[in-house]
Amino acid sequence: MEPIKALVLKRNEERRLRAGHLWIFSNEVDTQASPLTAFQPGERTDVVDSRGKALGTVLVNPHSLICARLISRRPGCDPSVAWFRRRLDAALALRQRAVDGDCYRLVHGEADGLPGLIVDRFGDVLVGQLNTAGMDRLRSRIEEALMERLSPTGILWRNDSRVRELEGLAREVVSGPGRIPDRIEVREAGLRFGLELAGGQKTGWYFDQQANRARVAPLLGRCERVLDLYSYHGAWGLVAAANGARQVECIDSSAPAIAAVQANAEANGLSDRVSALQGDAEKIMDACLAEKRRFDAVIVDPPAFAPRARDVKPALKAYRRLNEKAMRLVEPGGLLISMSCSAHVQEDRYEAILLQAARHIDRELQVLMRLEQGPDHPVHPAIAETRYLKGRAVRVLPSF
Amino acid sequence: MEPIKALVLKRNEERRLRAGHLWIFSNEVDTQASPLTAFQPGERTDVVDSRGKALGTVLVNPHSLICARLISRRPGCDPSVAWFRRRLDAALALRQRAVDGDCYRLVHGEADGLPGLIVDRFGDVLVGQLNTAGMDRLRSRIEEALMERLSPTGILWRNDSRVRELEGLAREVVSGPGRIPDRIEVREAGLRFGLELAGGQKTGWYFDQQANRARVAPLLGRCERVLDLYSYHGAWGLVAAANGARQVECIDSSAPAIAAVQANAEANGLSDRVSALQGDAEKIMDACLAEKRRFDAVIVDPPAFAPRARDVKPALKAYRRLNEKAMRLVEPGGLLISMSCSAHVQEDRYEAILLQAARHIDRELQVLMRLEQGPDHPVHPAIAETRYLKGRAVRVLPSF
Repeated sequence: MEPIKALVLKRNEERRLRAGHLWIFSNEVDTQASPLTAFQPGERTDVVDSRGKALGTVLVNPHSLICARLISRRPGCDPSVAWFRRRLDAALALRQRAVDGDCYRLVHGEADGLPGLIVDRFGDVLVGQLNTAGMDRLRSRIEEALMERLSPTGILWRNDSRVRELEGLAREVVSGPGRIPDRIEVREAGLRFGLELAGGQKTGWYFDQQANRARVAPLLGRCERVLDLYSYHGAWGLVAAANGARQVECIDSSAPAIAAVQANAEANGLSDRVSALQGDAEKIMDACLAEKRRFDAVIVDPPAFAPRARDVKPALKAYRRLNEKAMRLVEPGGLLISMSCSAHVQEDRYEAILLQAARHIDRELQVLMRLEQGPDHPVHPAIAETRYLKGRAVRVLPSF
Repeated sequence: MEPIKALVLKRNEERRLRAGHLWIFSNEVDTQASPLTAFQPGERTDVVDSRGKALGTVLVNPHSLICARLISRRPGCDPSVAWFRRRLDAALALRQRAVDGDCYRLVHGEADGLPGLIVDRFGDVLVGQLNTAGMDRLRSRIEEALMERLSPTGILWRNDSRVRELEGLAREVVSGPGRIPDRIEVREAGLRFGLELAGGQKTGWYFDQQANRARVAPLLGRCERVLDLYSYHGAWGLVAAANGARQVECIDSSAPAIAAVQANAEANGLSDRVSALQGDAEKIMDACLAEKRRFDAVIVDPPAFAPRARDVKPALKAYRRLNEKAMRLVEPGGLLISMSCSAHVQEDRYEAILLQAARHIDRELQVLMRLEQGPDHPVHPAIAETRYLKGRAVRVLPSF
């Protein structure tokens, strides 16, 4: 007997989908009725509930814990070039409305109805990630739709993220159509940042912080002395300097990052305000504390301390230690911009950590803003995982 | 025997204070050691833990469930005019850094280390609330400090909030020093709004939404047709129009509010873009739906549906119904700005309500921004009650 070519869910396992989610976990599949082994990685099929009622179209990966992702609530949906074009149009319309300029995240996976696909736009260069077997298999259609809609000079696939391993996909950087320049320019808030596309982190730029920097810029600009820890290419520091901060120090452990800060400061005419120092953030904070140096604002924007769920406890300890030191360095009434991009660290616990650190050193905190990923990284309200970036702009005061 | 003139807490009841909170509830007091009846409403005293260790200085109200609020972590603190001046200076420094112009909330109670005191600044006019017996008793010192630091032309006390009843205080509007003009002007985002100080809601203006309007303004400005429900004096609608929206309709059930929208639109040269209609928001939405009218953005910013904890369940139903109608009115890909100022409605549940509404009418949502009170309404991270305003900027899409 032919296996039924639809993914059949166990009883009641359609509930999460109906509530708005797009994922199916392998233990939710009725493998008697629809053995996962019958599907190729990335294959498209319909999904039905235990009574055979259609729930939509999914891309399957039998080798992944998330064994299927919904691409449409209609069955029989064909993710053709025209279909991708329509989804891209919807994604593009949002960015054109929500972001100034042409540097942003153009496609943010599930939240844009394109599960597993990430595309960042750097003007006329696109840098993407195909993070599921389903999207990987559809690469040529995606490229065709992107070329049609955006006419980029080139598309680069930074398919080297860890999540590809969970999908049984190779980690690699591959060129798509067109030509990728070695060096491109990111424009943010009137500033220009040079970027080597071959190196760099993630897809090359932290677009997710763009809206946060814009919100905090007026506050930072009214500070004299700003310390930018884990500065990467200096975006936070340069935004502060461009808005009026006079003495900005960027710290990063990576020599290329520090060189980039210096080049970016130079290119934007901010070298007299921005200095860059290679070193470990905590060690440099210790040295500043020993010298009794103080800052009107300290920015703490470290890499994810808890990329995996089991890392949460040590991550919270590390965040606590780091932020307590940063608070000690803040002049009374000054600012701490504190970020966590660890998806597994819950926001309430993060704020609690900040409060504990403040109490421990007898400071009061005023939370001025909750920072979050910008509108070009929309959150899907049914998929908690799509909200990963969290932070606080807090004011640090002497104890009441 | 003289009663000990310090408030003595029961064993372990100092924990919340040590963790950063500023409130003491009456059941936490060791009334054997320190009978609450021994204190006058608003009296200042020290507070000690069960072993007699000093925790700081409080203002007591024996008649309130929150029977004492910490004003300092040092014992023997005298809330003198000079002390108020220092707290005001700290509050003022934040607003000067965080808000453009001179219209903002200057003092936000607990979060500014001044429990029970609210002061809004409209340029050179101050409008305040003394919401605890402690602050009410210190009114003349507060006025002196405010006059010294800000030299306002006048101070008005809008002591008519419901919370004063919980403190056994009269609800009344009383004049402080100086002269209060009948009519003042609020300046926000380059716009001017006239305001009658005697009437109006709260202290007269929703400063808490100022930062949200600024964040959403670029999105609204790229919309053609905007519907502003529960518009009050039209701040959302006028900000949308000033940023580029061409057809803005403001709806409010209050005739004076509608007259104010019209006058404000006129005064800002936006009458050709802004119209105002008196009516019930839901009925007008029903009429729009019947006429198949659609908008590029709908703003839903109603009064608090759940001012008390027991109102939460019906409030969630009302929010759900209201937002579902609003989503139906949004053009595919358009915006919904949805707010709740009900302190008792939890933010996660509010977002869940929006998701349920969307699923019910087969729409997808993209959460673009979490909206919240602005930085002149700082949140005290230990006092959940200081974070009361929540909202979402979401994009409403056809079902994936």
